[in-house]
Amino acid sequence: MGTPLDRPFVAFAGGPTGHWEVTASATITGSPLPPVSRVDVHERVGLPGPDQAATWTLVGRVSNGRYTRRTELDALTAIQAPLGRRAASRAALIPIRKSPAWWALAQDERRAVLAERSQHISVGTRHAGTIARRLCHSRDLGGAFDFLTWFEFAPEQEPAFDELVAELRGSLEWSYVERESDIRLARRPSNRAA
Amino acid sequence: MGTPLDRPFVAFAGGPTGHWEVTASATITGSPLPPVSRVDVHERVGLPGPDQAATWTLVGRVSNGRYTRRTELDALTAIQAPLGRRAASRAALIPIRKSPAWWALAQDERRAVLAERSQHISVGTRHAGTIARRLCHSRDLGGAFDFLTWFEFAPEQEPAFDELVAELRGSLEWSYVERESDIRLARRPSNRAA
Repeated sequence: MGTPLDRPFVAFAGGPTGHWEVTASATITGSPLPPVSRVDVHERVGLPGPDQAATWTLVGRVSNGRYTRRTELDALTAIQAPLGRRAASRAALIPIRKSPAWWALAQDERRAVLAERSQHISVGTRHAGTIARRLCHSRDLGGAFDFLTWFEFAPEQEPAFDELVAELRGSLEWSYVERESDIRLARRPSNRAA
Repeated sequence: MGTPLDRPFVAFAGGPTGHWEVTASATITGSPLPPVSRVDVHERVGLPGPDQAATWTLVGRVSNGRYTRRTELDALTAIQAPLGRRAASRAALIPIRKSPAWWALAQDERRAVLAERSQHISVGTRHAGTIARRLCHSRDLGGAFDFLTWFEFAPEQEPAFDELVAELRGSLEWSYVERESDIRLARRPSNRAA
């Protein structure tokens, strides 16, 4: 991936080619994404256009946290596994859109639902040492989803990852989720023609 | 402007033509914007490209508040003057970029600086009945500024507007501002060729 970019735009391109093979794909809520066999992940300095070879391209951007307090951020940063670990050959891409009712909440109301009532930050932190996570914001970019979250983990961590998403999906926060897909992936040599 | 768009992208195009004539322009901090005589404001459903006739185009998007609590939002909404009032023939465009140090703060730290220590929300609310305001977020769109704030007011409100910006510029929050311009405008018939 070369030198890490500061706050890159990230394009997730689903289609016939790519470094990540789709092993399972589920529509949790709302409209499905067209099925694909592979996903490629591209980092860009500027806003990327659609990948012409792809069936769909979802674009987000790494941004600042909107809810995490200093104590929570320090606890998370101290243990957060990085992306790109050799053993982390499995991944998940979870695009989410929240409802207008969520976005009509004020900052303190969103924080109360997400953190105090749904434990999103503490649940995530509990798994952060083994499950790498990168949140891309896409709401203000005009796409179909508000957030694109990418996770990487070792194959034996997939049951723990299933627990993590099940716990969040049962939370009050998730009652505000109106579209969600869950795409599971395994790292492979790219099948894109050179 | 037709039917109001939900969360439009807003393009501020500075150049030789437009509905707003530049009456004064100042660089408060950092690199100046090239001087222009007019500014046009365009609302779009999708991300707009640059206006080819313009010297510069700044693009932002109306988004959700990042700091306002429910009580503050209700107080503000109850009195906030709308855009487009006939008497509000003066405007200001204030593009701002904050420093990496600001963006490295956690949510509670940014809130404490912006609200509790700098009174940004209460200062704004005090003037909201006479000075219309629209905040466009641009940080995640990849432009040169983080925020583009547009204000509209009657000519006799300009001294009050000067007080408002002076009060904010003296605040702790503004020590994190690394680029700021202040462009004052008067509404005119458009001078763009038909």
